Amino acid sequence: MYMRNEAAIALSCLRCGNEYELNDYTTGCPSCLGEGYPVSLEVKYAAVEWSVDATKRGMQRFADKLPYRTFPMLGEGDTPLLPLADLATELGVQELWLKNEGQNPTGSHKDRMSALVVARAKASGYTTVVAASSGNAGASLAAYAAAAGLRCVVVTTVGMNPIWAQAVRATGAELVAAHDAKLRWKYMRRMVEEEGWYPVTNYLDPPTGSNLFGVQGYKTCGHEIAEAFAGNAPTAIVVPTSRGDLLWGIWRGLQEARDAGWIATLPRLYAAEPFGRLSRVLAGADYRGNFPGDHSSTESIGGSTVTFQSLVALKESGGGAVDVCGKDALQAQNKLARRGLYLESSSAIVWAAVQQLKDSGQLGAQDRVVLVGTSNGYKDHYFAQLPAIDVIDAD
Amino acid sequence: MYMRNEAAIALSCLRCGNEYELNDYTTGCPSCLGEGYPVSLEVKYAAVEWSVDATKRGMQRFADKLPYRTFPMLGEGDTPLLPLADLATELGVQELWLKNEGQNPTGSHKDRMSALVVARAKASGYTTVVAASSGNAGASLAAYAAAAGLRCVVVTTVGMNPIWAQAVRATGAELVAAHDAKLRWKYMRRMVEEEGWYPVTNYLDPPTGSNLFGVQGYKTCGHEIAEAFAGNAPTAIVVPTSRGDLLWGIWRGLQEARDAGWIATLPRLYAAEPFGRLSRVLAGADYRGNFPGDHSSTESIGGSTVTFQSLVALKESGGGAVDVCGKDALQAQNKLARRGLYLESSSAIVWAAVQQLKDSGQLGAQDRVVLVGTSNGYKDHYFAQLPAIDVIDAD
Repeated sequence: MYMRNEAAIALSCLRCGNEYELNDYTTGCPSCLGEGYPVSLEVKYAAVEWSVDATKRGMQRFADKLPYRTFPMLGEGDTPLLPLADLATELGVQELWLKNEGQNPTGSHKDRMSALVVARAKASGYTTVVAASSGNAGASLAAYAAAAGLRCVVVTTVGMNPIWAQAVRATGAELVAAHDAKLRWKYMRRMVEEEGWYPVTNYLDPPTGSNLFGVQGYKTCGHEIAEAFAGNAPTAIVVPTSRGDLLWGIWRGLQEARDAGWIATLPRLYAAEPFGRLSRVLAGADYRGNFPGDHSSTESIGGSTVTFQSLVALKESGGGAVDVCGKDALQAQNKLARRGLYLESSSAIVWAAVQQLKDSGQLGAQDRVVLVGTSNGYKDHYFAQLPAIDVIDAD
Repeated sequence: MYMRNEAAIALSCLRCGNEYELNDYTTGCPSCLGEGYPVSLEVKYAAVEWSVDATKRGMQRFADKLPYRTFPMLGEGDTPLLPLADLATELGVQELWLKNEGQNPTGSHKDRMSALVVARAKASGYTTVVAASSGNAGASLAAYAAAAGLRCVVVTTVGMNPIWAQAVRATGAELVAAHDAKLRWKYMRRMVEEEGWYPVTNYLDPPTGSNLFGVQGYKTCGHEIAEAFAGNAPTAIVVPTSRGDLLWGIWRGLQEARDAGWIATLPRLYAAEPFGRLSRVLAGADYRGNFPGDHSSTESIGGSTVTFQSLVALKESGGGAVDVCGKDALQAQNKLARRGLYLESSSAIVWAAVQQLKDSGQLGAQDRVVLVGTSNGYKDHYFAQLPAIDVIDAD
């Protein structure tokens, strides 16, 4: 069985600060929700000395700051942080790096969440985990559920990209489809409430962040960035964002690293999104609103909603949100691929975002910037548009 | 410009031992070839103290044992070595591990070769690199050539899997197709001889191994395995094999690690292949023969030829070859995916191979075995065979 971290002692609300016992609050803070505000709870840890376990690899090294000390290991974490000196020069910033989460076991950052969430589900006696996902989250959960011996149901939408459908099915997980993205949440809610399935993603509308035990895993991405910069933290980090699990996790991980003395300063966090959601909320809109837009070129960061946790990360860090249209996202994907960095379009969006940030003056010549690539290019499915290959006569 | 390793001082033939100056012998040992034997040359290093650069990540840590100290970095190497205690018990061996090369930047072990080969091409003034590949080697070379600013041509066959075609094209590389696999070699030879393109894979028939600078990169996979086991080396390693670049590289890397005192003993190496090629040669056939067979379920390790270097690794290590039919390879893929390990079928073949080795008594209860997974499951293309997804009514 997976081992709990005894230092994880309570939950607290990101908005009201109320504390709760460490348990599965699958719809966030009850008090805020009662007032009409969906808000995530976060795990609080006892103030104990934090040490990195150098004998381990990947996420396991940071077990002191995770709710479970052990979990199924498929090789999650310790992703490369690549210096991009040429692109830094082109952009006009001091340093530029790519944290390539596409080198996780299932090819995306989601593995950091899945490892912990299946540990929690298994340790709590659940037998079925369920996620609303049409992509990386589902493919990742399916793999980790298989590793943990849990039944997995992925609730997708009609017309799911077959690359992910294949990856989910290969593990033995079940796929069901709803007619639109928000109907997935209704179905999930029913199965959670009536069948006792363990929810890995949100199922409220408007939403909270994903499973509170799972999102703790994203802190390790922040830990790794802090560790790699060894005292001299970057000044900005750009993160592809939909509901902001990773954005928030990186932020909390960086704060923990700062508190532990690994870094002296904290970077500003910027969310790269396909159209105005967070940017509209930062400009004054209610975060519980509906913000429709076109995400057909960046399906992994689609959706018309915003979460409270994203705002916490952006406001606390002094960063912001950047809207990148589909055309620019695809151009960014092309640009990075021609530099040898083949990322999913939803990840490559960070290149377009960082250009906008530089052009608008939010980033300057002295900035040292980390781009987070969340997923690799093998997830994108453009086959139908490929030109025919020239056939040569070898004789 | 990429920096040469001054300790790399000469080449020597795997068969006759003749020494040559360090240069591009793209058809292997001239002396052996003159006698009708295609044989790879290997890089020899001056006997200098070998130190691992702990400030670096991945392949760069082993620069002392590579022909180039610097090369385009996309995050190659430092792949996870996963303990599989449950599968070890099921199989009846003492320990079982998976070295997951599918977590390299382009999702396969080929990145270890590509990094070095483009460094060599660039440093030698070539402007175009070319490989005969219908899969991982081409996709990997395309990414690294893009990173190095080299033109890249991938010579594939008609009907190339669109997942790889997309990955190659995304980088700006050119794809041309021949009507069969061996015709690729004829075309490549012409372009190498007439156009001055730099060859990354073999183009002889019968073949040698791939580019002699490139295959040096595979040694780092052996270095990492030796390093991870810290003195207590595994007793056997199973490697998916076509022309044996990785098999040979792992073997030489392990020997270097043994010579440096990292491990005391050397494991036996076993080649997992889709039908009798190496196994027939080990049983007495001439290695220069043609060994056709069905590799439709394991396209990444297809081909009807054998290389001398593969035999060196198998004979020197005291291992052997295992033939796994397509049906068993697909069953192995299914088995591992349902354990959360989603590998390309050509990689998952190692699970079927290790079962055969145990059943035949070549592996016993005391063995400690590493399976090398060369590529992740996102490369396989079974979409047309996927059942429809059930559509649920969420209301």
